[in-house]
Parts: sequence; structure tokens; C-alpha cells
Amino acid sequence: MHAWQISQFGIDSMEFVERPVHEPGPQDVVVKIHAVSFNYRDLLVVKGLYNPKMALPRIPCSDGAGEVVRVGERVRTWKPGDRVTGIFMQNWLDGAPTPAKTKGALGGDVDGMLTELAVLHEDGLVRIPDHLSFAEASTLPCAAVTAWNALAAARLMPGATVLIQGTGGVSLFALQFARLAGHRVLGISSSDDKLERARKLGLDAGVNYRTTQDWDKWVLDQTNGEGVDLVVEVGGAGTLPVSLRAVRMGGHIAQIGVLSGPSNAVPLPLILHKQVHIRGIYVGSRFDFEQMNHAIQFARLRPVLEAHPWTQAPAWLHRMEDGSHFGKLVMRLDS
Amino acid sequence: MHAWQISQFGIDSMEFVERPVHEPGPQDVVVKIHAVSFNYRDLLVVKGLYNPKMALPRIPCSDGAGEVVRVGERVRTWKPGDRVTGIFMQNWLDGAPTPAKTKGALGGDVDGMLTELAVLHEDGLVRIPDHLSFAEASTLPCAAVTAWNALAAARLMPGATVLIQGTGGVSLFALQFARLAGHRVLGISSSDDKLERARKLGLDAGVNYRTTQDWDKWVLDQTNGEGVDLVVEVGGAGTLPVSLRAVRMGGHIAQIGVLSGPSNAVPLPLILHKQVHIRGIYVGSRFDFEQMNHAIQFARLRPVLEAHPWTQAPAWLHRMEDGSHFGKLVMRLDS
Amino acid sequence: MHAWQISQFGIDSMEFVERPVHEPGPQDVVVKIHAVSFNYRDLLVVKGLYNPKMALPRIPCSDGAGEVVRVGERVRTWKPGDRVTGIFMQNWLDGAPTPAKTKGALGGDVDGMLTELAVLHEDGLVRIPDHLSFAEASTLPCAAVTAWNALAAARLMPGATVLIQGTGGVSLFALQFARLAGHRVLGISSSDDKLERARKLGLDAGVNYRTTQDWDKWVLDQTNGEGVDLVVEVGGAGTLPVSLRAVRMGGHIAQIGVLSGPSNAVPLPLILHKQVHIRGIYVGSRFDFEQMNHAIQFARLRPVLEAHPWTQAPAWLHRMEDGSHFGKLVMRLDS
Amino acid sequence: MHAWQISQFGIDSMEFVERPVHEPGPQDVVVKIHAVSFNYRDLLVVKGLYNPKMALPRIPCSDGAGEVVRVGERVRTWKPGDRVTGIFMQNWLDGAPTPAKTKGALGGDVDGMLTELAVLHEDGLVRIPDHLSFAEASTLPCAAVTAWNALAAARLMPGATVLIQGTGGVSLFALQFARLAGHRVLGISSSDDKLERARKLGLDAGVNYRTTQDWDKWVLDQTNGEGVDLVVEVGGAGTLPVSLRAVRMGGHIAQIGVLSGPSNAVPLPLILHKQVHIRGIYVGSRFDFEQMNHAIQFARLRPVLEAHPWTQAPAWLHRMEDGSHFGKLVMRLDS
Repeated sequence: MHAWQISQFGIDSMEFVERPVHEPGPQDVVVKIHAVSFNYRDLLVVKGLYNPKMALPRIPCSDGAGEVVRVGERVRTWKPGDRVTGIFMQNWLDGAPTPAKTKGALGGDVDGMLTELAVLHEDGLVRIPDHLSFAEASTLPCAAVTAWNALAAARLMPGATVLIQGTGGVSLFALQFARLAGHRVLGISSSDDKLERARKLGLDAGVNYRTTQDWDKWVLDQTNGEGVDLVVEVGGAGTLPVSLRAVRMGGHIAQIGVLSGPSNAVPLPLILHKQVHIRGIYVGSRFDFEQMNHAIQFARLRPVLEAHPWTQAPAWLHRMEDGSHFGKLVMRLDS
Repeated sequence: MHAWQISQFGIDSMEFVERPVHEPGPQDVVVKIHAVSFNYRDLLVVKGLYNPKMALPRIPCSDGAGEVVRVGERVRTWKPGDRVTGIFMQNWLDGAPTPAKTKGALGGDVDGMLTELAVLHEDGLVRIPDHLSFAEASTLPCAAVTAWNALAAARLMPGATVLIQGTGGVSLFALQFARLAGHRVLGISSSDDKLERARKLGLDAGVNYRTTQDWDKWVLDQTNGEGVDLVVEVGGAGTLPVSLRAVRMGGHIAQIGVLSGPSNAVPLPLILHKQVHIRGIYVGSRFDFEQMNHAIQFARLRPVLEAHPWTQAPAWLHRMEDGSHFGKLVMRLDS
Repeated sequence: MHAWQISQFGIDSMEFVERPVHEPGPQDVVVKIHAVSFNYRDLLVVKGLYNPKMALPRIPCSDGAGEVVRVGERVRTWKPGDRVTGIFMQNWLDGAPTPAKTKGALGGDVDGMLTELAVLHEDGLVRIPDHLSFAEASTLPCAAVTAWNALAAARLMPGATVLIQGTGGVSLFALQFARLAGHRVLGISSSDDKLERARKLGLDAGVNYRTTQDWDKWVLDQTNGEGVDLVVEVGGAGTLPVSLRAVRMGGHIAQIGVLSGPSNAVPLPLILHKQVHIRGIYVGSRFDFEQMNHAIQFARLRPVLEAHPWTQAPAWLHRMEDGSHFGKLVMRLDS
Repeated sequence: MHAWQISQFGIDSMEFVERPVHEPGPQDVVVKIHAVSFNYRDLLVVKGLYNPKMALPRIPCSDGAGEVVRVGERVRTWKPGDRVTGIFMQNWLDGAPTPAKTKGALGGDVDGMLTELAVLHEDGLVRIPDHLSFAEASTLPCAAVTAWNALAAARLMPGATVLIQGTGGVSLFALQFARLAGHRVLGISSSDDKLERARKLGLDAGVNYRTTQDWDKWVLDQTNGEGVDLVVEVGGAGTLPVSLRAVRMGGHIAQIGVLSGPSNAVPLPLILHKQVHIRGIYVGSRFDFEQMNHAIQFARLRPVLEAHPWTQAPAWLHRMEDGSHFGKLVMRLDS
């Protein structure tokens, strides 16, 4: 089979190689991959910033979708032809997270999905909603489950207000899920054009944070001075202080991003006086994924993506770096 | 002022009388009532079945909407012209219920709203969402808040399935709120025509429980054999056993109704083996009402009602008794 | 190996037989059983009242403790000499219950523990707290986990009041866990002597329900008229109506028992007006069991039991039937 | 009456003055204060660091206990002789916090308790547990309610492990409440002597953070490598990064302190990967206070304090500054 592998760190050091297929164990499933989506984590992995001690070579990317082509002798759950995606952490099936469950992340602790054939344990897969293509399904394992759990952590009632940041995968999934749950959604972006595209997806109001740097005041204006019920905080140290000013007393911050800017001091007095709930969100379990898929199928939601040939994977990782994409970047293996 | 009062129990014993207006205390508000909606409880009150020991005469009905015409000297929250409804339990403003908070229900413990002028403490009112008429707003205090809290008790994620029973006020509000929250809604009714009308309001699927008496099997068929996540149980002893068969393992029953049929034995082993959560719902607090109004205003929901002149109130209580209405029955005072 | 088996239903039809040991699969563990405890369910199983269609012969009893004597070739979790108990439902490891997880209950769906050697999947075991004997550990899988989850369902703060019913296994574990959690515990029993013994275990106050049949009034007297925060309801249809009068507004009922008396009507209006939370409790997951064991070990709790030779198992099932025991009845295999 | 007042900021600028007593309004209560306890916030208030724009003169201190000596004409809840303390935020009676409810903090937004006579609204008081002296009761409004809600935010089961920091008021209350709830308690302190005194109060294990600066490793050693379930985080920016390393995956941090050290960067990746729940705790409502008092009375807990004459208040504020006290510092007015 062909695969992209990290032989040494760096986007341009990625190699398109031919590798032997692992013989599946008795409970393993061989999946022919049709599409792979990128996450910001994949970029960090490839560049050696996520885990500089990672054993190489490694196949990157956590998110892939395809069809079952072969199953081990004891597998009863799956059969050839089933349309599946892998789950981000292969051992987190259910219940609260533990160190043991959160090991085994695809494209990090173990080989990932940027390959023609992936061999996974039968427990590490979920079924694709019927109305989704492989390209659409490939966007779900990391970004969509993360957005789903950001909303699940707050369990807001309809009419509550949610703030999203930017228009990357997690943020647009959060927008779609929040609208589905009857929430009002505010957003910030560096691009008026992207805000306009987000509006078409249901964003109630948005502001350009380059031209409106004190966007917390804009948020307060939009919410009768109260602030939002939930911030889906993907910005990290650069945005958390502003988010703490933009969230209502007793509100929620789903902490996802670790990315932006310098590591500014977090204003602890605001956490205290506003009695904020901050919850770290790190993807989720297979149970969460299945529950989300049930909602996606019911509401016939469609992920927002742009798809490109997987042979150009490094070029699109570079593109991801500059932040110019909207929604998810998907690599097609089948075209 | 004019009012309907219960001088002795019985629908046809209700008297349309002229009564003096109470002088408002320093924290009281005088509300000119424009519309009043009926609840099944009002029918029981009038007939003496709700509280046979109630002191008479009493003005019935918990749910009325109107405008502020005068305020006590220390009132700062309200001013003449404000559009308001009363809250069901005048002392339950916030937090968990207590015996003290749940006393003072309008049209039961104290005089109610079927009157031209009502005098209420300033704490016992909420503002009407802008897009609603008085008739629409009058439907909210009991039925809508009850439906809201039935959903709040379960805090389901989008894609979850909710079962409603019949097409009375609570059930149709539950339908509207559940759809708003991204849930799938199943329903049962004694009338194919009413099911058809409910479908137009968003019901995903329905069945006539007269022709399909084992509607729990229908529910299981509709849910891949699993059962629903939440039953908004308004039927009472006659339906609870069936609801317990129709709810999924670990699912929720919001227990609201105490009405139907003979007091059949509840199948306790099902509660146990299915690990069901049953929660008694008795309207809610002012906080709940305000949060609900926020959602209603955001989503521009409109209650389902039919309105009639208040001079015919007894006739419409009789009509309520026969169950032929759909949604809420409202009495107009202003036409 | 020797085992007791149900060849046909009835306590006196139980047979003490010699059976071959199942060859362990690659992920199985062979446990030499040292002690087995009885639950009321075991009595119902043996008499054919739990599942009249159960395939026979079957080895009864869910609860046994012993030591690992042999492990399958792929087992890494356990080694010979490890002290273990089985988990009640062999497939419920973690997370919310599902029909699939709650199949496979020992001594019901599959052979149980009243045997010298039990062969279980490596996932279906938990480690015994160091300070407990095999006899003590054998009491935990069903009754203790049930009591633990009854308390977990309510998550009360210290100072809250819990009501237990009788002095069987679940009730005494609930007493011990509730006291450990800083709760006040009230109890009812048919025996003054048993109440006295319960007081020595920490019961704060008790009443004899034979001489005080309106024990709900006694409970209200003890709680300043408010009622208790949680009833660990093991009585079933005979006690649930009284429990609903004895619980506070907004309080909790952990529904466990399905046993007592005639199937009286449940007073639904009380569930509604008191806004009670009723939750069906059916044992729990391996995660719950391990968390409970952690608490038992930390607090060095010791189960309350009386132990007898397993060769007399039928006699002690008869004894269980008459209700004269206190705490758990244990059969020793090692004496 | 006599009172200490802040006429200008600074401990040594405090003035012991004679002031007229406010005439109580119809719903007010006059309380003769017998004891006042200090919180770190009082020190900041007096020094002008809490709110440099505070209108002066102002009577400081949120926490006082005394007896009712006179009530307004419409007061029904209280009568002369009742033993009471004020609640920290005079308007937060119940339910979730809001900006309106959290205004009106005693000794900050309005005059406080370091006075012979305090005039408070009847809603702003709670009854003192019978077994407590005025000095003991004076320690409760801020520190004890804060510690109570730190534990309430996590709702841990028995056997869970809680980490406290230092031996100030909040930390020792957290220790007492955690032990009452069946938790294991670990602690850090700058003083071996204070750790020894804490052990006598129930601390399970402690370490001196001056000699063991990487106390997170000590915590991991104490918890089988897993970390604690809850950190009662009173240190602030100086300790939060270490606490994030010491808490288990999925664990809780009750964020209380804003005090220590330089504003170091908070390691956001740890929040994310460990999926930590951080919750800001700012005292609590009257409902929380009453529930806590119920637990204190049931368990007959006694606060840890040292008491001194109120005429020496400034000297003891200086003493508070150097951190040498253990538990609460109380000023007696009645000796």
C-alpha cells in the first residue's frame, strides 16, 4: 500500500512511500481509506512540535474514513463493505477519561490514517451516517467530536448564547451543533469574508477581531451586558483573557485551543468573581462519537470542507499553516 | 371590576360578579388583564376536585396576561404600560423548590386571573416577549413552563428522541421546545386529525393510541428497539406503565400528569431494570420562566391556541372537559 | 469441581454435583472460589420466580470471592494468587447502562459463583481491598455496589438525611456508606433488636414499622417536618407510597426493591407536587465497583455478615426466606 | 455605637469612632455584634488594594456574629435574642449567581461588621448552629461557605482525595468538610508545625512546600501516580500550574485564591489534555450557608480560631499579613 510517512520532522520531509500491510489480528479490521482530514494537531505532529520524541517513521493524521475490506476471524461487529471512520483515541470507548484510555491516539501514539489501508481493532471504529460521503465523514473524528463535547460540557438550554472563535473545523462544527440545539451563536474572525460565509451557516452575528480588538465589549453589547453562556475557546493563551471578560457570570468556557499568541497571564480574579466553569475538552469517547453521529444523521447535517488530492498532502499542510482555509481540509484518496 | 368567581364548586355555578379592586400595597402592581388561558388544573379547581377545602369565593385561573396600570410606591421594576404575565407560584422566584416557595399558586391558594384587574406583588411577574400578543402570552405561566422544565430535567443532546402524549398545552409546548433543541419528537393521540396538525408543528411521527393500544411497541419500532430518551408523561396512572416500556434504558420520564384512567399498578421492576430517571415536574420558578421567555423570543416561537370571549368562560371549561381542543384555550377580555 | 446447580426450580431441588471445569479461553481467568454471598435475587432465581424460562441446569449466585489459579494465554491483568471478586454484570465495565452491557449477569444469564472454580473473562473481575477476607469480599458485587450507586445517584452533601429500610445487605451498606459521607441516617425495621444492632453501626434513629405503621409521620417528626433527602427504597410496592410521603420536596428515591407486599397504586400526585427524583438502581458497572472498593479500603469499612458452610446452602436459602438474618449471608467454601 | 472605620486606606489609618446607629427600616434587623472574623479580603480592603475607588469612610469586615436586639415593624423571621450571622453578599439568597445578586457584599460594597451594632435586611441573616459560640460563628460567612462550595462544585464520592493549600480559614474548613464527607485529604504548608496541627484535625498526609518545591510529584506519589480528585486552590497564579500537574485526569480545581506570587502563565495544554474542570468559587448564597450550617450542626463541627480583643483590630490585621496564624483570626467585642 501507499502512505505518507514522517521519516523526519518537517512538512517538506514527508515521504510518500510503499509499505507492507499489517496482517490483521483476530479482532482487527482492515479499512480501505477514501478520505483523510487535517487537524491543526497533525500539522504540529508533522513539524515535530506536538511530540518531539515521537518514534519515526510514523504515518500521520487521526481522521480518516473508508470501507471495511477484510476482518479478523473473531470480528463480529463489522463486515466488508461497511463504511467506517476510526475513533481518535483507540482505547477510549466509554465513560470518563483515564490515562490508559487516552493513550493510543491515531497519528500520534500509533500510526494514523494518511494511508491506503489502515488496520484497526474492531472496537476503534464507528459507522458513518448514511447521508455523508467519505470526504464528509473524514472530518468527524477529532474536530466534530471536540465541538460536540464542548457543547455537552455546558448542557445549555435553547436560547442560550455561544461564542465561537475563527472558522476552523471545531468552530464551524460548534456553530452547526449550537444552532441545531437552539442556541444563538456569535463569532469572531480575522476576515469579513469568512464571517459572511459563517452567517450563511447560521451565525447570528459576528465581528472582525482585527478591526475590533476589544471584541469582549462587542460581545457584551450583543448580550445586553451579560456576556455569553459558553465560549468555545480555541484560541488559547491569546484569547482566554478576553473570553473571560466576554462570558457571563456563572458561564462556561470549553478550553480547546492551546495555540495562539504569547502565553499571557490568565486573569484569575475574573474566574473567581464571575464563578466561571472552565473545562478542558480533548476530543471524546466512542460513545460520544456515536451519539453525535446519531444527531448528525437525524438533522442531516453536512460538514463544511474543501477536498484535494492526497498526493498533494504537504502542500495542503502548508496551506493549513497560513489559516486561509474555511472549515475542514480534506485529502481524497479515491480520485 | 368584573371577575368570574367560584362561589360554590361546579362549572355552572361560576358567577360573573363585580368586585372592588384591592388597594395595592407599596410593592404591589395592578395589572389590567387582557387574556387568560385555561389549564386542566383550573377545571379541577372549579369543580372542587383539586382542593375541596378551598376557601370560597375565589377567582380561578393561574394564567393571565395584561399590562401594568398602576404600581405601589416602592415598586421600581415595573411601570404603567409594561406587558406582563403572572408567575404560577407567586413565591417561587429561584433555586430549588421548597414548601414555602410552592405556596401561593394563583387561582388556587390565592385569587387568580379571570378578572379585569389583578393585584400582584412586583416579584410575581415576568415581562412578555415582544413578538407575542396578550392571548399568546397568557398561555405561558403553567403549561409552557412545565414543558420547559420537563426538557430541562433531562438535558438531552440534539438527536435524542422525546415522546409527547396528546395535543394539550404542555404536550404542544414540549413539541415546540424539543424541536427547537434539535430533538426528534414522537407523539400519541386519540385523533388522526390532531396528529396531522401536530405533524405540521414539527412532530416527526405519531400514532393513534385508540387504534394502536400497544403504542409502546410502535415507539420501539420507531427507535430501533431502544425506546425514547424522554417521555413527557402527562397521562398519569393510565399511561405510566406503557411509558416505562417505551423509554430506553437509562432514559427519563418527566412526570406531569395525574389525570388519566384507573390507578393501575406501576411496574416497579421496569424502573429498576431499565434504571429509569423519573422526575416530578410541577411548573417552575420565575427564573425558569424568564429563561424560557428568552428562548421563545430568540426563536420567535408562537404558542398554539384558540381564543374566545371571556364572557363565555363556563362554556369553554365544559369544552375543555371533553378534550376536543388543540393546544391552549384562551379567554379574551379585550374584545 | 463441585458446585451447586439448579436442575429444576426449588430450593430443595438444588443439587450438589461434580462438574468438569471449563477450559479457559485466551482472555479468561480461573478463580478458586472461597466464599459466596446470597442476595434476595438468588432466592428468586432458585425458586424460578426471577426468570421461569431460564435454561437449566444453572449454577446460581452472582457474588463470589476467591483467588486466581490460572489465566489464559493473553491475560495480562491478573496472575495466580490475585484476590478477586466477579462483577455482577460481566459486560458492564463503564459508562451508562445499555441492554448489551446489562446482559450476562452471573447466576442468571450465565452460570454463577456457587462452585469451587469459576471461569470468567479477565474484564469481569475486580481486586479485593487488602483488609477484607474472602467472606467479606463476597458480599460486595451486588448489594454493596447497589447501595453505593443509590447514594451516587443523589450526590448529597454532608448533613443530608438518608432513610434505609430493613437491615438486609443493601440497607446496611447504604448505612455504612451514608455515614462515611457525613449523612444522618434514619431506619425502619420490623425488629427492635435489629434496630439496636443497626444503631451500633451508626444508625442515628430508628423505628419499628410493625408498631409504628405510619412511619412517614415519624420520619417527618425526625426531620423538622421536611422529610429525608434520600430514601434507599428496597421495599417496593408496599413501601413506595409511604416513602413518597417521607421524602422532602425535591428529594430522591433510589428505587431498588421490587419485593414487598401487594402492588399498591403509586401516588403520582405526590411525585409531581413534591418534584421527587426517582431513579431505578440496578447494581452498577465495574468502574462503580472499583471506585467503591477504593472508598472501602480508605475507610477500612467491613461488611456485616454471618458465614456458614456452603454444603448447607439450601438450608441458608430457606433461612434467607424468613428474613431473620442481619446483613449478608455468606457461604464459606474453604472450611 | 463604636466601630472601626476606614477613613483613608491603610491598616494604621483605621479609626475607632463613635457613630450613630441607622434607624432600621420596616424590614431591617439590628444586630449587636459579639465577634468578627478577618478574611484576607478584609486586609486588601483596608489597604485599598481590593477596591481603590471604594467610597470612604467605610466599616470593614464581612463576617460578624451577634444577637438580634431590635426588628423593623414588618419583620417576621427574627426576634430579639436570636443568634445570627450576616451573609456575605446580602442579595444572593438562592439559585445561580448574577451580577445583581453578587452586589452588596458586606465590608466592601456596603458597611461591614466591625461595629457594635449592624443594621441588615431581614433576608441577609442566617441562624447560628446551637453548639457554636459567637466567636466560632463569626468565622463562617466567607471562609466556611467558600470551602463548602468548593466541595459542592465537585460532588465527590467517599474515598476521593482532596488537596488543600496552607492552613488558612478556607483550607481548614475544606479539611473539616472533606473529612466529614469521607474524603482523603492531602495538604501543603510552609510550616512543619502547622502540618502537624492540621494532622490533628484529620489531614491524612502533608508536605512542606518550602522544602519540597515540586510538591506535585509528592502528590502523585501519594495517589498511585493518578493525582487528586479536587484541589482547593487558594494560592492563585503561583500555585495553579503546580495544581494542574497534581490533579488527576478529569479532576476538579476549585479556584479561590488570587493571591500568591507573580502572575505566571497557566499551562493551558494541561487543562486540555487532562480534561480538568476548573470552577471559580466566590463564597455562595444564603441557601448554601444554611445547608452548610445544617451539616455543621449535625456533625457538631467546630471552627479553628484564635480570638483577640477588637480594640486591637489593626494589630491583628498586621498579624494576618505575616501569615503566622492558623485557622481564623477572630475579634471579640464582648470581652
